Amino acid sequence: MAQLKGNMLIAHGGGPTPVINSSLRGAIEAAREVGEIETIYGARFGVEGVLGDELIDLALWNATDLERLSFTPASAIGSCRRKLGDSDYPRVLACFEKFNIRYFFYNGGNDSMDTCYKIHKLAQAAGYDLRVIGIPKTIDNDLAETDHSPGYGSAARYAAMSAAELAMDAAALPIHVVVLEAMGRNAGWITAAAALFADKMPCNHLVYLPELVFDRARFLADVQEAFDRRRGLLVTVSEGIKDANGKLIGDTGIKDGFGHPIAGGAAQSLASLILAETDLKARAEKPGLLGRVSIAHQSPIDRDEAYQVGAFAVKSAVGGESGFMVSIQAQRTPAYHSEMRLVPLEKVANAEKCFPLEWINEGGNGIKSAFRDYCLPLIGANCPDFISLPTQV
Amino acid sequence: MAQLKGNMLIAHGGGPTPVINSSLRGAIEAAREVGEIETIYGARFGVEGVLGDELIDLALWNATDLERLSFTPASAIGSCRRKLGDSDYPRVLACFEKFNIRYFFYNGGNDSMDTCYKIHKLAQAAGYDLRVIGIPKTIDNDLAETDHSPGYGSAARYAAMSAAELAMDAAALPIHVVVLEAMGRNAGWITAAAALFADKMPCNHLVYLPELVFDRARFLADVQEAFDRRRGLLVTVSEGIKDANGKLIGDTGIKDGFGHPIAGGAAQSLASLILAETDLKARAEKPGLLGRVSIAHQSPIDRDEAYQVGAFAVKSAVGGESGFMVSIQAQRTPAYHSEMRLVPLEKVANAEKCFPLEWINEGGNGIKSAFRDYCLPLIGANCPDFISLPTQV
Repeated sequence: MAQLKGNMLIAHGGGPTPVINSSLRGAIEAAREVGEIETIYGARFGVEGVLGDELIDLALWNATDLERLSFTPASAIGSCRRKLGDSDYPRVLACFEKFNIRYFFYNGGNDSMDTCYKIHKLAQAAGYDLRVIGIPKTIDNDLAETDHSPGYGSAARYAAMSAAELAMDAAALPIHVVVLEAMGRNAGWITAAAALFADKMPCNHLVYLPELVFDRARFLADVQEAFDRRRGLLVTVSEGIKDANGKLIGDTGIKDGFGHPIAGGAAQSLASLILAETDLKARAEKPGLLGRVSIAHQSPIDRDEAYQVGAFAVKSAVGGESGFMVSIQAQRTPAYHSEMRLVPLEKVANAEKCFPLEWINEGGNGIKSAFRDYCLPLIGANCPDFISLPTQV
Repeated sequence: MAQLKGNMLIAHGGGPTPVINSSLRGAIEAAREVGEIETIYGARFGVEGVLGDELIDLALWNATDLERLSFTPASAIGSCRRKLGDSDYPRVLACFEKFNIRYFFYNGGNDSMDTCYKIHKLAQAAGYDLRVIGIPKTIDNDLAETDHSPGYGSAARYAAMSAAELAMDAAALPIHVVVLEAMGRNAGWITAAAALFADKMPCNHLVYLPELVFDRARFLADVQEAFDRRRGLLVTVSEGIKDANGKLIGDTGIKDGFGHPIAGGAAQSLASLILAETDLKARAEKPGLLGRVSIAHQSPIDRDEAYQVGAFAVKSAVGGESGFMVSIQAQRTPAYHSEMRLVPLEKVANAEKCFPLEWINEGGNGIKSAFRDYCLPLIGANCPDFISLPTQV
């Protein structure tokens, strides 16, 4: 592949993660290393910045700033939820021409990979010499063709640690059912992570993933049975659980920029249901966005892999590749090890990797050990070493 | 004062804090040091354990266990929300007689200090030789006669850090108003802590404390003005904010064991209000109990002071004192320094220390620097050193 002199642009799409800035750092440091890339631009607020010619020259960050990036939550260049329409694409190319962008990196989830693929095809069709690589990112872990997505390990760690701590509270003051709401609209990966330490918890823990139809009557029976067995109970539900009619349990009636219904309130709605239909007390916790910004619960492995996918994307593009997403290949035995490779954007765009049904228990309210084996290495933490309530009297 | 040979009992009342186990450790280690105390008991699930003669011999914990206690959230002996009725008090004394309890320590908030005072008076009236000391504890920081309460520094740190991280998200993806709900039913101490780093945040931040009447129209005007000034907005509200009629904004209609209405849903209710009454999008986050169990956000100063109040309580009782609560005396200049003294339980029982109105700004939606000076030393952390969104293009 011939060398391609010119500038590079990196853009963020969709919701941030605790480590997307680590990918940004990886991409910038790799680009500074190689000779071909001249100016490194960041799109201010994702494709909105591209459409508005608002690019930031990232030369403004020195080595110390780049280190701080790894521990800065959200997106340091800004993101957006705007989905490009057909009429927007020519404007994207116009921006690229204006700034002589020859390397484009889009760091996002399913929708962003679709956009990324379209930009790749568009440039090809227009005969504009451009190398396009997608950098995976989603706390939801629902990107196809990769073992897992950067951002997930940290979000999973947040869920696992939050559940472990809440379980201590629920067991110590066992007056209610604590219902915790986890992010993940259509995929139960984060919700399942809340159950990682379930067998070490001092109270029972039920989890309900969006991959299964949510049945209120069965839920109430589960709750009553679990509370009767042991006072104090933690329940974790996905924000996206739906009933048999496909209606969200926490439906707000609002849609986001991609036309997806905004979920919210599933936990509160179920706490109210418990209060109304049983003699138990209940309360709901919905940390929401806190689960995607926590630096205290950032997974070191996640942060490191996020760095690597960013760096690998730049090196691959400079090496002549285009039209791919970076994918994480992982092996878990004898010890966890991962490496990067490329997968065609076409295979990733708009695909959605749901939680495997065979990893859900028969009661539909817990996870099997296969998921623990999958997830534990990604969060980079063990169950906290808490002192349990003594049983002896 | 004559020596008093016999056993000691420590009980927890009300909601746990991230450091109540540190007070427990302090009390146990002090008691092991002195000669007078024979067996150290913990009440299993607070006064419920006392009424049911369910005491735990804490000899079961070795030195390593005691160290782990400092980093264990919730209550390692269990707590309850049961408020003692008149007929319960004789049973309390019967339990004390049965187990030869001569030292009683009740670790709790306002209601617990009232109970503690009543037990002290009851023992006096019955001629039962008992030394009673209250150990302060409440994330709400509303105990009177003390500079602050153990548990508050950690809850404040959680609020401050959560707000700082959420503000990064709100600024990076500025598509909505993020409404964060903070604990603190009648006192705005935790809510105010969310604003500790407000002037370093990359988006505007409004706070609404329960000490002021909440006015929906004014709130909507504040929100619109702040969002217009800078895209992306964080709002923190107390779970206990009320309208001019005294009705909770997030009223659930449920009451707890002390007869207090359970607040919840203030943030969701305001997010819905913004969606209904403006063109802005909004979403609510309610970490709830997560704000009182987070070990990652435990304040080292809070943990240390919690230890000290527990140890000081035991040493004071062994020294002959009874009928007091341990109080933290603090000075902030030239450097933060605190020490313990005793205050009469009578002065503390059922008093409530609200947030000083003179520390709230004129708009009723922010805090003044006097509060920062008060609170910052208690959380033991500075504003995180995040990379801000560059403004240059």
